[in-house]
Amino acid sequence: MSYQVEALNSAHLELQGGGGGAELRRPFDPTAHDLEPSFRLTRFADLKGRGCKVPQEVLGKLVSALQQDYSNASDQDAQFLNMAIPRIGIGLDCSVIPLRHGGLCLVQTTDFFYPIVDDPYMMGKIACANVLSDLYAMGVTDCDNMLMLLAVSTKMTEKERDVVVPLIMRGFKDSALEAGTTVTGGQSVVNPWCTIGGVASTICQPNEYIVPDNAVVGDVLVLTKPLGTQVAVNAHQWLDQPERWNRIKLVVSEEDVRKAYHRAMSSMARLNRTAARLMHKYNAHGSTDITGFGLLGHAQTLASHQKKDVSFVIHNLPVIAKMAAVAKACGNMFQLLQGHSAETSGGLLICLPREQAAAYCKDIEKQEGYQAWIIGIVEKGNKTARIIDKPRVIEVPAKD
Amino acid sequence: MSYQVEALNSAHLELQGGGGGAELRRPFDPTAHDLEPSFRLTRFADLKGRGCKVPQEVLGKLVSALQQDYSNASDQDAQFLNMAIPRIGIGLDCSVIPLRHGGLCLVQTTDFFYPIVDDPYMMGKIACANVLSDLYAMGVTDCDNMLMLLAVSTKMTEKERDVVVPLIMRGFKDSALEAGTTVTGGQSVVNPWCTIGGVASTICQPNEYIVPDNAVVGDVLVLTKPLGTQVAVNAHQWLDQPERWNRIKLVVSEEDVRKAYHRAMSSMARLNRTAARLMHKYNAHGSTDITGFGLLGHAQTLASHQKKDVSFVIHNLPVIAKMAAVAKACGNMFQLLQGHSAETSGGLLICLPREQAAAYCKDIEKQEGYQAWIIGIVEKGNKTARIIDKPRVIEVPAKD
Repeated sequence: MSYQVEALNSAHLELQGGGGGAELRRPFDPTAHDLEPSFRLTRFADLKGRGCKVPQEVLGKLVSALQQDYSNASDQDAQFLNMAIPRIGIGLDCSVIPLRHGGLCLVQTTDFFYPIVDDPYMMGKIACANVLSDLYAMGVTDCDNMLMLLAVSTKMTEKERDVVVPLIMRGFKDSALEAGTTVTGGQSVVNPWCTIGGVASTICQPNEYIVPDNAVVGDVLVLTKPLGTQVAVNAHQWLDQPERWNRIKLVVSEEDVRKAYHRAMSSMARLNRTAARLMHKYNAHGSTDITGFGLLGHAQTLASHQKKDVSFVIHNLPVIAKMAAVAKACGNMFQLLQGHSAETSGGLLICLPREQAAAYCKDIEKQEGYQAWIIGIVEKGNKTARIIDKPRVIEVPAKD
Repeated sequence: MSYQVEALNSAHLELQGGGGGAELRRPFDPTAHDLEPSFRLTRFADLKGRGCKVPQEVLGKLVSALQQDYSNASDQDAQFLNMAIPRIGIGLDCSVIPLRHGGLCLVQTTDFFYPIVDDPYMMGKIACANVLSDLYAMGVTDCDNMLMLLAVSTKMTEKERDVVVPLIMRGFKDSALEAGTTVTGGQSVVNPWCTIGGVASTICQPNEYIVPDNAVVGDVLVLTKPLGTQVAVNAHQWLDQPERWNRIKLVVSEEDVRKAYHRAMSSMARLNRTAARLMHKYNAHGSTDITGFGLLGHAQTLASHQKKDVSFVIHNLPVIAKMAAVAKACGNMFQLLQGHSAETSGGLLICLPREQAAAYCKDIEKQEGYQAWIIGIVEKGNKTARIIDKPRVIEVPAKD
């Protein structure tokens, strides 16, 4: 099976000197793997990344029948079910299930989506980081097991499949190893659209996770990754499509777009694990991760689950450099500044006591070399979230 | 949301007097849900059920890079990894992961596939039974948590989606309740092909599962459900397609096909839970469930995992009545009698001590009212499986 070894060697070349930072990683070159120069992984699905979710309100309608049943449950597990059930895609990030065995809980999540970048290895890493992120959002830092879900596109040639699938699997696995866990199984099917995702499970004591419902007036909101991944991957795709490119070339250079794309790729592949660990150190009151429903969608869901009568107000939007301008040039397409642009493997949005937030941000930067931002406040209110009229956009440059 | 209540009421009507037996269930009537009479769930994917798997040998190639890595692992978990890893679709039925917490293991599996029947509620039940079956194959009888994976077809109208999705969800959930577990989360996306599946997890003591590697010479092989589900669902679809129907109408009547389809639907929706429970009582030496790779594919995988030098020889093929004749009339298409026809949510194939097998079959029939069959023997050999030249076909009638 020398073709595989070759594929993996190329992957290693692309990684040389990378150390995980995508900026230092060579761009994926299809010809180095004996594929057509025009090969693009993202063309094997008509939707991209977390843009594939069933819309929040539709899903709400569809699962209401299920929810009803569970909210009638009166057994001692009701408080867990109550928390876990709304999330067939719409609620909190994980299911938490009390076990038969002394005080332990199963914390579990699943996610899958379509290719968002053209580099299969990075796609695997991103998919893994994205699944794990749901655990991290609950403050869980150790994952006990992962399964991988993969659909190979019916439109791929055998050659393409034989190059792409091992690279995706390796990326997924490397990310799992980085997270201190392993991939022990999964399921592979063929499907018109290439699909990749996984399942992450942890068995832990209740003190290992943070129920995200303790925000109080006076807390502040911290975000650990910049927004704009969906804008960046689209802008990058438009480099090949003159009629789309013409719409944005007045506000952004090709170089800007390439930098933003690599920043986005690196950001999506980064684990939220340190962010999760520090939530315990700095007494976080709750958190969620930003994915398909955008910053505001997830902020609203988090707000709606609070015990106290609080609301979230967001003042600052950290955005990958130039992507706010691109989003504006595209009219209503992304709704980035309205908080609706889908993110893939986005940052954690965390409620922290005001006096701890700055230290949290400083600590995460010290440990990982990445900034986090205080983006808003928790005030008295009716469990909703909003972005102020003219939020301040923080341009987040690509790392050198 | 009255449209949902209506949809569910229709589902209840279709179930009346059913008690889980599909024979007594009214056929799904699209018009009762305000859908076009021509609505067929199975048309929302080009592949059916477990026929969607990446071929066994292709998958073997693709995952070899991953397996390599793990077989080098030298830590104390190696024996578990060794067992669990080969099954990114090709190996045993579950991952078994030793946990940090005193002697406990996580047993976990995932599966998803495309619509195989046109009744959305039954489709949900079948998908759930199919996922759970992997746990049951390991002798695990209690599932601690389920997640549901659902892809809504991009080709469905809103109306179709709003009818179909709640019915699928309810079927899935009802099956989970029947299994004594609950669905606490999942993921929903849109996709060209409708897809449904799930994740099943159990945290248990090592004595709660049966490592399927203890077959010895003299054991016999028991099968707990008839073969032929894929043939039956295809034949049923051909009732609408005269040119296909003409190929088989000499060997089978329309009534035969309808009966076989309902028998198949009921069989696929039936849980293998009693079968799993009785494995403990009768000292089973190992088991697997029959799904996408057909009887022989799964028998071979099970044989290859044995510790002793044994081989499996299969003499009898219990097949849903008339479906062997249909398969023969279709030439090489299904390869049913060769053991290659895909099954969905098939029975358990169990290695049992010869002196216990008859009692096992009698017990399962007493408890569930369904037959099980001794279909072969374990003899000395090189860890392979085969079907004899002219196997005896056992015609399994639809239940009344």
